[in-house]
This record gives sequence, C-alpha cells and structure tokens, in this order.
Amino acid sequence: MTSVDISALTLEQKASLLSGQDFWSTKNIDDAGIPSIVLADGPHGIRRQDSDADHLGIHDSLPSTCFPPAVAVGSSWDPAVAAKVGAAVGREALALGVSVVLGPGVNIKRSPLCGRNFEYYSEDPLLSGVLGAAHVTGLQETGPGASVKHFAANNQETERMRISADVDERTLREIYFPAFERVVTEARPATVMCSYNKVNGVYASHNKWLLTDVLRGDWAFEGAVVSDWGAVSDRVAGVEAGMDLEMPGSGGATDQQIIDAVREGRLTEDQVDDAVKRVVALTSLAREATGDLPVDRHHTLARTAAAESIVLLKNGGALPLRNGQHIAVIGPFAVSPRFQGGGSSHINATRTESALEDLTALAGERNATVDYAPGFSLEEPDTGRLKNEAEAMARSADVAVVFAGLSDREESEGFDREGLELPSNQIDLIRAVAAAAPKTVVVLSNGGVVSLEGWHDDVHAVVEGWLLGQASGGAIADVLFGVVNPSGRLAETIPLRLEDNPSWLNFPGEQGHVRYGEGVLVGYRYYTTAGVQVRYPFGHGLSYTTFETSDLELETLSEDTVTVHVTVTNTGDRAGKHVVQVYVATTAGPVRRPARELRAFTKVSLEAGESKRVALKLDRRAFAYWDIQLNRWVVPAGNYAVQVCSDAFTVLAEQEIALAGDSIIRELTMDSTVGDWFAHPVVGPQLEAGLAASLTEEQAQQAQSNSDHLKMVESMPMQQFLAFTNGAFPAEVLESLMELSKKEA
Amino acid sequence: MTSVDISALTLEQKASLLSGQDFWSTKNIDDAGIPSIVLADGPHGIRRQDSDADHLGIHDSLPSTCFPPAVAVGSSWDPAVAAKVGAAVGREALALGVSVVLGPGVNIKRSPLCGRNFEYYSEDPLLSGVLGAAHVTGLQETGPGASVKHFAANNQETERMRISADVDERTLREIYFPAFERVVTEARPATVMCSYNKVNGVYASHNKWLLTDVLRGDWAFEGAVVSDWGAVSDRVAGVEAGMDLEMPGSGGATDQQIIDAVREGRLTEDQVDDAVKRVVALTSLAREATGDLPVDRHHTLARTAAAESIVLLKNGGALPLRNGQHIAVIGPFAVSPRFQGGGSSHINATRTESALEDLTALAGERNATVDYAPGFSLEEPDTGRLKNEAEAMARSADVAVVFAGLSDREESEGFDREGLELPSNQIDLIRAVAAAAPKTVVVLSNGGVVSLEGWHDDVHAVVEGWLLGQASGGAIADVLFGVVNPSGRLAETIPLRLEDNPSWLNFPGEQGHVRYGEGVLVGYRYYTTAGVQVRYPFGHGLSYTTFETSDLELETLSEDTVTVHVTVTNTGDRAGKHVVQVYVATTAGPVRRPARELRAFTKVSLEAGESKRVALKLDRRAFAYWDIQLNRWVVPAGNYAVQVCSDAFTVLAEQEIALAGDSIIRELTMDSTVGDWFAHPVVGPQLEAGLAASLTEEQAQQAQSNSDHLKMVESMPMQQFLAFTNGAFPAEVLESLMELSKKEA
Repeated sequence: MTSVDISALTLEQKASLLSGQDFWSTKNIDDAGIPSIVLADGPHGIRRQDSDADHLGIHDSLPSTCFPPAVAVGSSWDPAVAAKVGAAVGREALALGVSVVLGPGVNIKRSPLCGRNFEYYSEDPLLSGVLGAAHVTGLQETGPGASVKHFAANNQETERMRISADVDERTLREIYFPAFERVVTEARPATVMCSYNKVNGVYASHNKWLLTDVLRGDWAFEGAVVSDWGAVSDRVAGVEAGMDLEMPGSGGATDQQIIDAVREGRLTEDQVDDAVKRVVALTSLAREATGDLPVDRHHTLARTAAAESIVLLKNGGALPLRNGQHIAVIGPFAVSPRFQGGGSSHINATRTESALEDLTALAGERNATVDYAPGFSLEEPDTGRLKNEAEAMARSADVAVVFAGLSDREESEGFDREGLELPSNQIDLIRAVAAAAPKTVVVLSNGGVVSLEGWHDDVHAVVEGWLLGQASGGAIADVLFGVVNPSGRLAETIPLRLEDNPSWLNFPGEQGHVRYGEGVLVGYRYYTTAGVQVRYPFGHGLSYTTFETSDLELETLSEDTVTVHVTVTNTGDRAGKHVVQVYVATTAGPVRRPARELRAFTKVSLEAGESKRVALKLDRRAFAYWDIQLNRWVVPAGNYAVQVCSDAFTVLAEQEIALAGDSIIRELTMDSTVGDWFAHPVVGPQLEAGLAASLTEEQAQQAQSNSDHLKMVESMPMQQFLAFTNGAFPAEVLESLMELSKKEA
Repeated sequence: MTSVDISALTLEQKASLLSGQDFWSTKNIDDAGIPSIVLADGPHGIRRQDSDADHLGIHDSLPSTCFPPAVAVGSSWDPAVAAKVGAAVGREALALGVSVVLGPGVNIKRSPLCGRNFEYYSEDPLLSGVLGAAHVTGLQETGPGASVKHFAANNQETERMRISADVDERTLREIYFPAFERVVTEARPATVMCSYNKVNGVYASHNKWLLTDVLRGDWAFEGAVVSDWGAVSDRVAGVEAGMDLEMPGSGGATDQQIIDAVREGRLTEDQVDDAVKRVVALTSLAREATGDLPVDRHHTLARTAAAESIVLLKNGGALPLRNGQHIAVIGPFAVSPRFQGGGSSHINATRTESALEDLTALAGERNATVDYAPGFSLEEPDTGRLKNEAEAMARSADVAVVFAGLSDREESEGFDREGLELPSNQIDLIRAVAAAAPKTVVVLSNGGVVSLEGWHDDVHAVVEGWLLGQASGGAIADVLFGVVNPSGRLAETIPLRLEDNPSWLNFPGEQGHVRYGEGVLVGYRYYTTAGVQVRYPFGHGLSYTTFETSDLELETLSEDTVTVHVTVTNTGDRAGKHVVQVYVATTAGPVRRPARELRAFTKVSLEAGESKRVALKLDRRAFAYWDIQLNRWVVPAGNYAVQVCSDAFTVLAEQEIALAGDSIIRELTMDSTVGDWFAHPVVGPQLEAGLAASLTEEQAQQAQSNSDHLKMVESMPMQQFLAFTNGAFPAEVLESLMELSKKEA
C-alpha cells in the first residue's frame, strides 16, 4: 500500500495526520512523502468544493453529474446499475481530483419519515448490502476510494448528533449491520465513515465495540475509519476505539489532545501508530485531477439508470401512452424537476432536463400532442385558479399526467418529516384532474415514501419516480411512452397509515434516546408477520409485459447451502425485466423469526416469449439468526420454506427443506432451568436415573400425579429450585453435571 | 412496632431470621421474644396450608372463601368493593392464623396473554393502584399485613424466573411503578414482595435501585421486602439491596452465606441489622388463629362483589331476562363454574354455586322456565351431538344463554396463553345457537381477555363474567335477571386481533430478554394514540339504565391541582351505577404523551331520575411525565384537555386548561446543541449579542442567506460545532456561559 516509514515521524507529526488540514483534505508531510488527499461527498455524484469555500460546506461546488440517488438505485434491484453509477462517480472523482468519495449510505430505512432516506437504498439489509457493495466495487475499480456510511444505526436526522440508538444486538447484527458487513467483506472500501449518533449510549466515533471488535475483528476491515464531518466527541477515546481520521480538522486542538494522552500514558503510541498507518495507507490514493469529465456520456448513463429505477405501482390501462394521444401534463415538477435531495449530497448538476421537454420530444415522434398547466403551486397553498385551468385542460385531453411530489422544504438531510401526506393542494388537484380527465396518471417525485391514500383509487396509473438524478425528465418520458419497460420494484413498503409502521411507536425518540422497540421486525418483516395490510408491499412493481415463474427446484450443496433454480418466462408481447425475489420463511430457533426474509434476488432481462432458468444461491446466513447467548450466527434445526415471491406478501412458488441445524452445546449453569437440565442430551438422562433411584415409591407416585404442576417447576432456574429441595442435589453433584454439560452429546 | 432488642442477638441468630423456617413461616427466637409468623397466599382468599404439606406448595389448603379475583374487582372500578374484599380476606386470615397475606397483585396487564392476568387488576396504573390500595387498607385494618406484589415488571409467566424485563425508566415510573407507589404511600402495606424476574438485567431480588432507591428512598416504604417464593438468586447481594426476608427457607444455606459475607467484610453487620429490624417488626403481626370464619356472610359478600364486577359488553334488548320466558341455558360452565385461576392463588372454596342453580331459583320466582343442555364438552373437541341437542333446545326457547370460556388447562399461573380465541367448538356452538334461538346471550368465564371475533355480531348480548369467585353463579343470575343492574367497566381493552396489541411485537421475549418496546403506550394508551380500532375499549360497560353527563367545570386549586366538577344523571327508569372517568390529554413536554390517560374516576350510584354533582381531584401527577434527564416528575408548560369519557375512546365532555408548568433550568453542556444554547433564556441573548458584534457585515449577510441550512447547525452539539469554528468560541467564554446557564432566568 505505502512505503512510508512512520517510525521516522515524531509524535506531533503522527498526531497531525489524524485530523484534516481543512474541510476537505488531509494533512501532508512532504519530507516523509505523505501527500494530502481530498475527500468529497458522494454518494451519487461528486461535490467538489474549494477548501476555503465556507466552513459548513453548504455552498455550491464544481459541476458534476447528478446520478440517481440511492432511493432510486435501490428500486432498480440491480447491482449492475449500482456498479455503473459507482464507476461513473469514480471517473468524475478522478476528473476533479478527489481521492475518497463519501458514500454510499447503506443505513436501513427504519422509518419512512427519515429525512435522509433518499440517500439510502432500502428497508432490507440484503438489498442495501448488495447494491452498496456493487457501487463500491464499481467506484474503486476506477481508482478512488469509497467511504461506506454512516456506521451505525444512524436511521434518523432528528437529534442525529447526540441521540442514542438503543438497539439490541440481534437487531444490529440481523438488520442494521449486514449491509455494512457485505460492503466491507465483499467490496473492501477504502474507508468506513462512523456516524454522528450514539449506539447504545456510546458515540459511534469512540465506540470500540463497533469500530474495532465488530468492524475489524468480525469483518476483517483493513481500511481507515473516518469520522462523519464533526462527529468526533472524545478524540482520545476515538483513537483507542479505532476512529482513525477526524474530519474536518479542528485547528490542531484534538491533535494536541492525542499528544497529551500519549505523554500522560492514557493512550499508547502503538495505538496512535495503528491509526497513522491506516491514514497513510489512504494517502496512496492521492491523484492529480484529470479534468476529464464525460458530461454527455454520463448524462446518458444517468438517464438509463434512472429509467431502471422507476416503479410502476398501478396501471389500469393508462400506460404506456399511445401514439396520437392528446396529453395534458400538469404540475410544476414537470418543468422544474426535483431530482435530488438537500444536504451534503447536493450536486451542482452538469445539466438538467425536464419531463415536459422530453415528453414533448417523444410525443413529436408519435403524432401525440402535449399541453402543460401548472395546476398547483409549491409556494402558495391556495391555487384555485391553477386547479381550474388544469381541470379544463384535463377534460379535453385523452390522458392527464400529473407530476406531484415533495419539495426541498419538506424533506432533506438534517431533519425528519412529520407525516407521509402530499401537500393538500396537490391531493385536491389530483382528485380534480382525475374527475375531469378520461384517464389520469400520477408521477411522483419524492425522497421518502408518501401516502397514496385519498387519491390512489381515483387515478388509473401511479408511477413512483423517487428522486431520479439530473436525467429524471428523460427517464420518466421513456417509461411513460414505453421506450423503456418499467422494471423497478419497491425497496420499501408503502403503508396505508404512518401509524402502521412498526417504528412509529418509537420514532424519533425523546430525551436523547430512540428505542428500536420493533427489533428485527423492520419494514415488510413487520407487515408480513403481523398481517398488517399495506398499500403496496416491498418488492412490488409492475411491467408492461407479464412474467411467469415455474419449475422451482432446490439443490442442496451442503448442509446449509442451497441453490434455488427457477424458470422465468416473459408471457407478454414486449421485452422486459423481471426481479426474481427469493425469501426464506421459518419458525425455527429460540427467537421469533419474521414471516419471511429476502435472501436472494436477481434481475432477469427477457425478450417477449423468452424463458430463462436462473440459479440463486442461499448460503448459511440465509437460514441463520444471531444468537445473543452464544454470540454468533446459528442455523437452528427445523423446516425452512424457500419462497419465490413477486413481493413480500405474494408467494409464487414454494418448497420446504429440513435442516439438521448447527450442533449447539448449551452449557448448564445454575441459571439454567430445571427443564433445561432435564432436556440436556447428556445430563438429562443421568438426572432422571438418579432421581428414579432416590425417590421413595410414594414420592414417585406423587410426582406422577402432579404432572400438571410440572410446568411451573420446569421453568425454575436450578439456583431457585434448590431453595425448594433442602439439599437434595449436593453442590458437588451439580458441579460435575455442569462440567459434563460442556461436552458434546 | 416491636420492643425486641436485636443488639442482643448473635450474627447467626440474626442471619437465621432472614429466611423462613419452612414453606410458610418465619423463624422464631423464643429467648429474644421473637415469634414465628405465618404468611399465606392471597390475594382473593386465604390459602392456608400445613407447613409440611408439600415442598412446592401446590396441595389443597384449609377451606376459605374464594372472593372475586383481581380481574373481576378491577372491572368493578370501585375501591369500596376492593376494600370490602380486602377486609374479608383479613378476617379469614385472623381466623386461620395467618399474619401476612400475599397480595394484592398490582402488576400491569401488558399483554392479554399473560397467564396470571386474572390476579391483576388492569392495564391502567391508576385503576390498579386505587384498587390495590383499597384492598390493602381494608385488609390491614382487620389486623394482618398485606404483601403487595410482584415488584416489579413481572408481566408474564414465560421464563418468569429469569427473564430480564428491559424497560426504560420513564415507562417504569409512569406505567409499571405507580400502582406499587400508590399502595405503598397510601396504604402502607406490611410487606412488598419482590418478583422473580430481572429488571434491566438485575434480579428484582437483589436490585438495589428497585428495593432501596425507589421503594424506600422515593416512596418512603418502611416495611419488609419478602421474596417471591424461590425468587432469591444471590442472597448476599439481596441483603445489600434491601431484600429482607427470603421465602421459603433454604435449610440454612443462605443464612450461612450472609454470615460468611459479614465475616469476610463483603457485607456490613449494619446492613444485616437493617433487614433484621424489619423482619422482627413484621413479627409483631403474630396472632393465634381465631377459627372464626363467617362462611355465610362472606359467601354473600362474594356474591355482591362479583355482581359489581360483571361487565355488560353488548345488549341488543336480550337482557335483562323477562318474567315468563323460556330460557335455554347452555354450556358446562353453567353447572361447573370456573370462578378462579390456577396456581398459588387457588382457594379451597367454602362453597360453590352454579349459575344454573341460581337462574333456576330466580326463574321460579318469575314464572320463567329454565332448561339446560351442555352444548359442548371441555374435554372432547368433537361435540356434534351436544351441539345439535343444544340447537334444538335453543330453537324452542325464548332466549338462549350460552356459558362459554376458558378452562384451567388454557390459562394459569406458570404459563402464558398463545392466542385470544375461545376453543373452536365453543365458537361453533355459539354460532349454531345464535342461528337457532330468537335471542342469544353469551356469558363468558375467563381470566384473560378472549377474542369476540367470529361470533360477536351473531348474538344479542355479551356478558363478561371473568372469574368471579365462589359465588359466581348467583352474581351472574342476579345480573341476567336484573336483580343487580350491571355496572362493571372494562379494566382492559378487548382488541380485534392479538397482533393489534402493542406488546405483541415483544411478547414474551426471547433468549432471556423481553423488550418493553411499546414504552408507555400500553393498552388503551396505544390504541387511542395510534388510532387502532378495538372491539371494546378500556372503560366500556353498559347498564340497564342510561346516564347523562353535564355541566363540566374545572376549579383550579393551585398551579397544578384541579378539581373536576361534573353532574351525572340517571336518565333511565331503574337505579344504577355509573363510573365517571376523567382523562387528561396533552401534547405538552419533550416526550410523546399518550392520546389520553385515566387520571381520576369514581363510581356513582343513582336512583332512576336522580342527579348528583361529583367532584374529582386532579393533582400534579395527573399532568406530569417522568423526565429521565432531570430524574423527576415534570409538569411541562402547555395546554391540557380534561376529558370526561364513557370509555377510553369516547369523550362526553371536555375542557382545556393552560398550565404554566414547572420552572426548569436545563444546564448547558458541551453536549447541548447550538439550538439549545441560543434558546437558553439567559445565555441565548448574550450569545446573539456577541455573535452580532463579532461578524463582519459580509458574514452576517451570508448567515442570513443561509437560514435554510440553520436547521442542520442548530442540531449540532456545541462540542461538535466547535470543530467547524476554528476557535471562534474560546473555552473560557463557553465555561462562563455554562456557569451562567445554571442560574434561573
């Protein structure tokens, strides 16, 4: 990685390397051959600022391509899309002299209200991890490093800089960690960015369990940990915890804290050296800006990636638009597209195009006509005149396409939303247009889920466009006219009511704490398990063609590795893409399992009439849960249904397999119940034999007749049970039985 | 309390006093004048066993009156009923030589599945506390001591002996503690029984925070803490924590542990003395058995108390039964009543009476006729013949009364239920009878809530009889014939689906932990706040007459004490009792408040046409929440709606008051956000002035134009914000401002 000899550096020099020299770059030590490198936001484009632009980094940056944000890429369900976007972002980083791109964000969408959901992929950890890993791989193959963020449990903006995410370990391991784990182990990002918040009371920026035990111990991460900008709370504890690079710089204040801590013996120089080595290794990514930014090619890529990400939620025959139609385009989003979110990811786009422009262009080729009316205003709530005008236009059209959505004021990094509803003037407009037009299509622009209630049933088609990047207009036009057959699938549930979301009980927390009370039952895991109806489930998405799934076969590769074979056929009359979603459903184990969990997926492209046989691998993690007593993944013995679904609620084909499960030795302790003792494969039979020998006949009969009460005794820990037995089990006997319990049966 | 001089006792003698001498009695030291006393289960009758009966205490006991269990008394909403039952239990304790009666149980019904819910009053802490305090006061006025149990957070039977109830402190203070707090502070019970489970990882039996800081510190409890039978896990830690009396005895083993700990300096003799003093004080309750058990009088009391507790859920004109009717009584519960639950509270009743007997007797006086058919069997699921027979009888009757419910096998102490449904053969029978009979009444016998779905809409009336004690038959007959006008109200919600219950996500927990993920939103607090429909809400209950509520007035006694005046009128044609329920609804404070919370109630008896003006006091706790940062109750400034309701969903009258709230000084720290600093009443203005003076004109303009981004800066803790300011705020300035923040504005 680097040939720098850090033993030649003074403590002061070493400490200086552990924080930025300004807002966006690291410190250089020229004599030692250590260059400065530039880090820049990400994730879906490069936000390269002059380092003296402003202290909060909120000003305009150099132009770059705004690719579809994660909310869109998530809905593509296609790692190839994520990889292409990642690679393009990498090329632009090279062009602009950026060595480390801050992103992707793989935090889980715990609540639809999180203001930063547009920067995250999904409510599902597998989908988030696969797409995040593809993005990082694509990006790093071009040269620069990535920074997967925000590690960890940063699932809201409210009080994000000091809130403690109170989450049990099974939930962290099964829901909030796996996307990070996959990115780290598969894509080996140059850096991991720690989050602002506390995890179970300890700031992520000095959480040793998080940054060392889990990240470097369990996942073998070898890169550097960089702080989210301003996330450092206790710098010395951070170095000890494995937080290598503080960004931005603190003007030397925290460097001095490190120096003092070493001098006073509160930190070892070895600990400092570990961090320095990782930061120095990072500087091997230093590059001069090439200036070579392929604006046109990347804009085209932004358009195709965006089109892959659009989700057709509903289609009552209104789409695709047909030749010769008179189309009423309504809503200011059609002319001033909202295609990215606010905050640190905000890109100074090289180009933008509006849906109205692109629809007009495509209509021209199809003998169709396009009219436009704003219909509502994003600034003024009372838009009666605009609504009447739009209504009139809709009445005389063949089809009305309403562009609705959320404005920057309503969602952004930095704060969370308070509800799911569209502004009421937009709902009024949609209903009015739907009543007037022969057919009505609604196209949504929104970073977080919006409620479709109050108008969904009135319209013929709903197109979920999320935030699609700078080529949003073209992508939407392509899908509406059928130039692209929509293939996006929901990466998050659209609920009927906010209160139905399992995080609703505990979002965004209070008085410094947010309790992850729903545990692993996040998103569709909750809705499917509790049987709560939703508007559109995770995984849902329509196409202009139809698909059939058949011939499911399971091929067992080893005890807990299975290959799923299934045939997908395009039964319609045009080419399209289908997402094969494989879930595993089980009740095995001592923990509550969600009704089903996504365990593999692949997107298949099929010509009209074409069939393909696809294979998806389920490894042991597809069947495992995290055991907090054994502190590891466990595949419990039991039955597992492998289900091929069209969404989280709809099973198309299913096969069950029985797994023998892991061989587990649960050592007996005085805290083990009487039931545990008798059920133990080795100790139980000995106990029964001993008991039979020691009881009088009368006692044995009495025990028999009391079998109804045994349920109560069984649940007693041995320690407590002894209080009832007056020494019937001598301590030395129990000790030897506990020894015995450690051996395998 | 006692004149015993414990300084004369040896360490061995003292240690010996801290555990039982057998299953039900404490040790005596005759030379020191310390007698042995007997403790016995409660709560709704005396279970006096010979001390050598059996080791697990599950055998038959001496006959005593089985009064209505807490599930019934809870539904009476009448502290006078609880007090009468308590006093009667106290008299029977005297008769049977019992010094301490184990009960009442005031645990909150967190889940309808808890197997021991029949021993608890309510899902609401106020209702539980008022009834528990009345029971204890009534009992202790007769002489013996009470033992309020199970302290704390023992809300399930599954793994009850070792599960950790993981509950945040606000939830403990607002939901799970207040009933204990009220009983301790108002009724001064002789003992508090610690529970089996762990609270946040520490066994209740050696949880010093629980048994000393909260119980004795905050609530000034002066009595003894006794362990639930077999609850002791670490005896030495228990003494230190304030767990005085271990029951049952451990044959001297734990006494020796205490002696060793003192000898080895791990425990001070003062700590032992504190426990000994409290146990010795308890022995002043020693009494000889009087043998005077007024069987008839107590049976009559059991009948009137039971009748007060029955809840008429639905009545489509079928009730009361009318003179001359031909009545088909169906269901084995009519002849073999289930009137109490299984486990330690099980009473060897002095007498039982069946509903069939009593209905027949009352029918005789009314020219009515009663026939009986079993309809279904509790033992055999397939009861086609029985059903057909009952159907035929129902067809020829004027009204069918079906007695349905749960059997002992389906619910008990020691295990939790897995679902809410009645056995399917009972549901089949109810539907068949409802289809056949002109009118159908269902009478339920159940300790925990059962679902009414699948049959509720088919029948004309539903009578919730819970478990009513040994006079259940007479009480039910009285209500059905209108001898008693029903006045019970639900003390717990009857949901539409188990999954709707907020604890469903986390019940009964797994791998040693149960997360109280719903926080304070327990029972109706959740249903009303989330707007989740229920079958019958908390507080619901019908009468044979009608009531009107009018002229609500609020009288402010002090800043945060209010008297609620309201007029209740019996607008029907027969005498009846009405429960005035006063809730407070607010969104004030930094925490999420439930939609409304029961804060006062009273049961009013009214002749036909009579009006009464009632007054209910709301003290400051009626408006307060527990602040985990200030570690105390806080009344926040804001508006509070005082609502008189007929149930948790139905507001009859409402008035709003504005409270100035507590004056709170929230000291600024480096963890306070920039927003906190600027919002501070003293520091904020100084900061603004200083900032205005230090900014250049250009900077000030820039700051103005960036106001959109201020939301992000505002949420930064000062510590982190400093990293962006390069020393703009010198440490000494911040220090002095933090000092300043401690002063009142």
